Amino acid sequence: MRKVEEFMKRHGLEVGDLVRVVKREGDERITFEGLVMPPYELSPGETLTIKLDNGYNVGVLIDAIEGVEILEKAVEKPKMEFKEVLPRKEGLPNVRILGTGGTIASRIDYKTGAVHPAFTAEELAKAVPEIFEMANVTPELIMNILSEDMKPAYWARIAEEVAKALNGGEDGVVIAHGTDTMAYTASALSFMLRNLTKPVVLVGAQRSSDRPSSDAAMNLTCAVRMATSDVAEVMVVMHGETSDTYCLAHRGTKVRKMHTSRRDAFRSINDVPIARIWPKGGIEFLRSDYRRRSEGEVIADTKIEEKVAILKIYPGISGELLDFLVDKGYKGVVIEGTGLGHVPQDFIPHVQRAVEEGVAVCVTSQCLYGRVNLNVYSNGRKLLKAGAIPCEDMLPETAYVKLMWVLGHTRELSEVRKMMLTNYAGEITPYTRYDTFLR
Amino acid sequence: MRKVEEFMKRHGLEVGDLVRVVKREGDERITFEGLVMPPYELSPGETLTIKLDNGYNVGVLIDAIEGVEILEKAVEKPKMEFKEVLPRKEGLPNVRILGTGGTIASRIDYKTGAVHPAFTAEELAKAVPEIFEMANVTPELIMNILSEDMKPAYWARIAEEVAKALNGGEDGVVIAHGTDTMAYTASALSFMLRNLTKPVVLVGAQRSSDRPSSDAAMNLTCAVRMATSDVAEVMVVMHGETSDTYCLAHRGTKVRKMHTSRRDAFRSINDVPIARIWPKGGIEFLRSDYRRRSEGEVIADTKIEEKVAILKIYPGISGELLDFLVDKGYKGVVIEGTGLGHVPQDFIPHVQRAVEEGVAVCVTSQCLYGRVNLNVYSNGRKLLKAGAIPCEDMLPETAYVKLMWVLGHTRELSEVRKMMLTNYAGEITPYTRYDTFLR
Repeated sequence: MRKVEEFMKRHGLEVGDLVRVVKREGDERITFEGLVMPPYELSPGETLTIKLDNGYNVGVLIDAIEGVEILEKAVEKPKMEFKEVLPRKEGLPNVRILGTGGTIASRIDYKTGAVHPAFTAEELAKAVPEIFEMANVTPELIMNILSEDMKPAYWARIAEEVAKALNGGEDGVVIAHGTDTMAYTASALSFMLRNLTKPVVLVGAQRSSDRPSSDAAMNLTCAVRMATSDVAEVMVVMHGETSDTYCLAHRGTKVRKMHTSRRDAFRSINDVPIARIWPKGGIEFLRSDYRRRSEGEVIADTKIEEKVAILKIYPGISGELLDFLVDKGYKGVVIEGTGLGHVPQDFIPHVQRAVEEGVAVCVTSQCLYGRVNLNVYSNGRKLLKAGAIPCEDMLPETAYVKLMWVLGHTRELSEVRKMMLTNYAGEITPYTRYDTFLR
Repeated sequence: MRKVEEFMKRHGLEVGDLVRVVKREGDERITFEGLVMPPYELSPGETLTIKLDNGYNVGVLIDAIEGVEILEKAVEKPKMEFKEVLPRKEGLPNVRILGTGGTIASRIDYKTGAVHPAFTAEELAKAVPEIFEMANVTPELIMNILSEDMKPAYWARIAEEVAKALNGGEDGVVIAHGTDTMAYTASALSFMLRNLTKPVVLVGAQRSSDRPSSDAAMNLTCAVRMATSDVAEVMVVMHGETSDTYCLAHRGTKVRKMHTSRRDAFRSINDVPIARIWPKGGIEFLRSDYRRRSEGEVIADTKIEEKVAILKIYPGISGELLDFLVDKGYKGVVIEGTGLGHVPQDFIPHVQRAVEEGVAVCVTSQCLYGRVNLNVYSNGRKLLKAGAIPCEDMLPETAYVKLMWVLGHTRELSEVRKMMLTNYAGEITPYTRYDTFLR
C-alpha cells in the first residue's frame, strides 16, 4: 500500500471529503482547505492531493502533514431512480435529454488531469435538479464521444432518435453535445428534421461539470426551458455572457463557436439570436420570426452524401488540392473564398473542371460575416461562369453540412444549385442586419 | 443607336452627371436623384441607369421618364503633375506609397458593372490632396493585381521594395493593397522585414474610389498619417467604424478581414489595435508596447518555403487529405482544428505519419478567437504526442505565413517548433486580454 493510501485509511479520508490540512514548512505552518482527490495512479504516493477552491490541485507531502481535519464528508450522490421518485407530473411538459458525450457530460480524469467523457445522461440530469421542476425529464445516453470525433453518420442517428422521441410524446428534446462540433451537428439536424413541430435544443459546456466554474448546470437549465418553449426549431443554447447572467438560443444554422475557451463562445453569425433565457425563469424573445410549435409527425430525412469537403483559399493555394478531391470521387466541395467569395484566377480552371465532372462547388467566405457576391469583381464573375454556386450569407460550416444533405437527395447540378439557394432552416437571411456583426 | 443613347444625347446627359429624373408609375410620380451610369453594354438599352446616393443602381424605363434635370455636370479630375506642382517641402516627412492593386486602386468597369484595377498609384494620390500636406508623398506602382491573385512570391518583392524605400531615405511606407488577402501580406511583411526601424502601413478600400461611399480617401489619409508616426511595425490601417469617424491601426500579425463588405471589416483578433487615427488629425494610442522608430538598416529576409498548406478540420474529414499533401512534397501544414485545436481521433495517425516524414504540422483553431490548448482533452494530448506544434493564439492565416517563412530558414523540426513558438512580430500574445473578443 502506498503511503498516501495508508494515510487516508488511517484518518478515515475518502475521495471527495472536504478537509483542512496543516502542513509544516520549516518553522511555518500552512493550512489548505479543499477536496481530497484520488492519488495519481502513477505517482510514488508520497503526497495527498487537495483540490482547492480556486480549482487548482496542490500536492502535500504526507511526511509534512501535521494535522488533518474532516470538515465535511463526501456526499454520496443519492442513488435515486428518478423515474420512480419523480413520477411524471401532470401539467409539466415532457423533455427527453439525449446524451452524446462532450464536456457537459464529462469529468476530469484524475489519473492524467485530462478531461474524459464519463457522466451518463442520468448522472448529468441528477446534478441539475432544477430541471425536474420545469419538466418531466427523461435522460438517455445514445452515444458517448468527444465532439471532435463526431461523424456525419452519427448525425443521422441523432436525428432519428430526436424524431422518435418527439413523435413518441415528448414535448421537446435537449441534446447534450461537445462544443467543438456542436454547430455542425445543429446544422445537420436543422436540415434533417423536416416538418419539425417541437423544439430541439443542443447544449454543451465549456468547463466540465466537476469544475467550480462549470457552465454545465446553467446551460442545461436554460436548454430545458427552451425545449418547453413555442419555438419549433433546432437551436443551440449556451452562455450569452461570461458571467452567469443569461443564455442565448441561437438558430442552428447560423451559430458558430467563436472562441476556444470562453463560456460565451457561441455566437449567431449574420443573424440575431432567437431568444435570451434567464436561468431563474423567463424567455425574452429577440425576434418573432421563428417557427411555431404545431401538430404533426416529425420526419427524419437523413440521407446524406459523405464525399464532401471544405477547402479554404489562401495565397499560394494550388489547384491540385481541388483536382485531388475530384479524382478521389468527392461529389461536392465548399470553398471558403477570400472577401466576397474569391479564389485566385489560376484556381478557376480547376473549379471549371470539377463542375464539368459533375462536382458541386459552393462558395462561401472565410470572413464568416457578410454575404458572398461574385458579381462585383472580374474573378468572381469568372468563378460564377465556371459553375460555382454562391452561398449567400451561409456559414462555410453550414454550407458544408447542407451540401452533404442536398447531395443525398440529388446529384443533378442544376437541382443542387436550386436546393442550395432554397432557405430550408433559416440558413440564408434575405438581407443581413447591420447589428449582427461581431455581436 | 439604342434608346438610352438617343435619350442621353437628346437631353445632353453624360456619364457621371448628377441628375433628377421624374418617372411616371401609374398615376404616381417618383423622383430619383443620382449619377448617370453608362448603359450596360449587353442590355436592350430601354432603361437609364442612375446610381443613387445609397450606392444602389436603379434602372428607369426611358418610356416612363417624364422629366430629367441636370443638377451638376460630371467634373473632369484636374490633371496635376504633382511632382512639379508639389516639390519636396522642408520639414515634412517623406512617405512612399507603393501601389499593388486592389479596390483602393480600382474603378468600376462601366461596360460590365464590375470593378477592375485601373488607377495608377499616381492617380490615387492625386485624388487625396490632403496627404500632400502631411508628407512628401512619392507614389510608385510596383504591381497591379487583385488581391485574391496575390502570391507568396510577390510578398518577397513587396518586402524588398519596402526595405529599399526605407533604407533609401523614406520615413515610412504605405502599401495600397486589395483587402481580400491584405492580412496575409501584412503577416508576411511582419516576418520578412527584420530590424524594422520605420512604419510600414498596408491600406485598402472596401468600396472603389469612384463610388460615393468609398472609404479609399479617408483610409489613405490615415495610413499616411500612421506612416509618419513613431511606430516601427507593419500595420493595417482601415475604417474603425462604418461611418467616417476614425481608422484603426492593427498589428500586421493579429488582423483579419472579418466581413465581406463592411468598411469596418478589419479587426484585431486576440489583441488590441495599436492606435485610433482621426482623419482630421491626431493619433490616439490604444497601447504603448509597440516597437519605436529607430536608426538602422531594414533587412528584407524573404526566404520562404512555398510548399505549405492550410487544412481546416470538420466532421467527416478524411486523413487522405493530409496524406496527399505529404505525398505531394508539402513541407508544412497548418491545421485549423476545432475548439482548443482538436482533430478527430482517426486523423491523428495521419499527423504522426506526416511528422515522421519530416513535415511540420502546426495547430491553430477555427474558432479564431482564443488560444489552442492540447493539454485539456485526451485527443489533444495524443495530437501533441504525434508531434504537432500548438500555435498559441496565432491566427491560422498568420501561422500559415509564419510557417512558410520559418521553413525558409530551417527544415529541422525541433528548430521549426522553436521558431514557431518564438514571438517575432507580436503574433503570439503572452495572455489574451478579456476585452479583445469580438471587439
